Amino acid sequence: MPASHRTSGSTARDDYLEQILHLIEEKGYARPIDISKKLNISQASVTNMLQRLDAEGLVKHEKYRGTILTDKGLNIAKAIIDRHETLTRFLQLFEIDTNTIYRDVEGMEHHISRSTLEALRAVTDHLQHHPETLRQVKERLPE
Amino acid sequence: MPASHRTSGSTARDDYLEQILHLIEEKGYARPIDISKKLNISQASVTNMLQRLDAEGLVKHEKYRGTILTDKGLNIAKAIIDRHETLTRFLQLFEIDTNTIYRDVEGMEHHISRSTLEALRAVTDHLQHHPETLRQVKERLPE
Ligand SMILES: [Mn+2]
Ligand SMILES: [Mn+2]
Repeated sequence: MPASHRTSGSTARDDYLEQILHLIEEKGYARPIDISKKLNISQASVTNMLQRLDAEGLVKHEKYRGTILTDKGLNIAKAIIDRHETLTRFLQLFEIDTNTIYRDVEGMEHHISRSTLEALRAVTDHLQHHPETLRQVKERLPE
Repeated sequence: MPASHRTSGSTARDDYLEQILHLIEEKGYARPIDISKKLNISQASVTNMLQRLDAEGLVKHEKYRGTILTDKGLNIAKAIIDRHETLTRFLQLFEIDTNTIYRDVEGMEHHISRSTLEALRAVTDHLQHHPETLRQVKERLPE
């Protein structure tokens, strides 16, 4: 499959862009120390990855301010967050506990193609609009 | 979440048990050389992992024959294959190409909890029994 049909560049890159966008939305910028805390990764590794993302044209470092996303980086980060939210929305239909949902989504999200994401989005949207169908689906669950 | 609620021990362990069961179904036993070819892993690594699986009581090595699964190993291998087939069956509803399905399933399968697996199974079973609903869901797909 062409790389462009995957929704994930790499797990690490996805997780960085996701957290950088969350931090920017929270504070306007992302400092290496905050990224390091969010991802539970050493500041040295964060600095390293930020240089790679900078070389790929995805982030810019502004002195005295922190890291911001380029337009290209922002588009990728938004797609990553949309994917996370779509998977979460699907699992929330089934009253799965919040921690399990978070862990499953964080694991699965890096491994799904655009086609799989769109299939899950279509199913989720349909079930959200058809509560009776959702009820019938849930009758098939064990216990 | 308790480890028992995950469907995956570890990615490597899952992949070994899955391929060992496939080989046993094909030939009656699994030889290290065949496992090594299926998983594209060196024979030395295979020998190593087989010793770990043996220590965990999941496989037994029989001289002049090869590796067979214990009852415990067989149950786990069957659950791994059931999970692979359920995910595949879900994606096949959406006419996603075979390679993409295989790649997504191989990636996702190690990251889903029992609850997520059961939700996907319920959705898949329902859609297989309700073609009109499936048609409506597919109308939501892009292009
Ligand atoms: Mn995520
Ligand atoms: Mn598999």
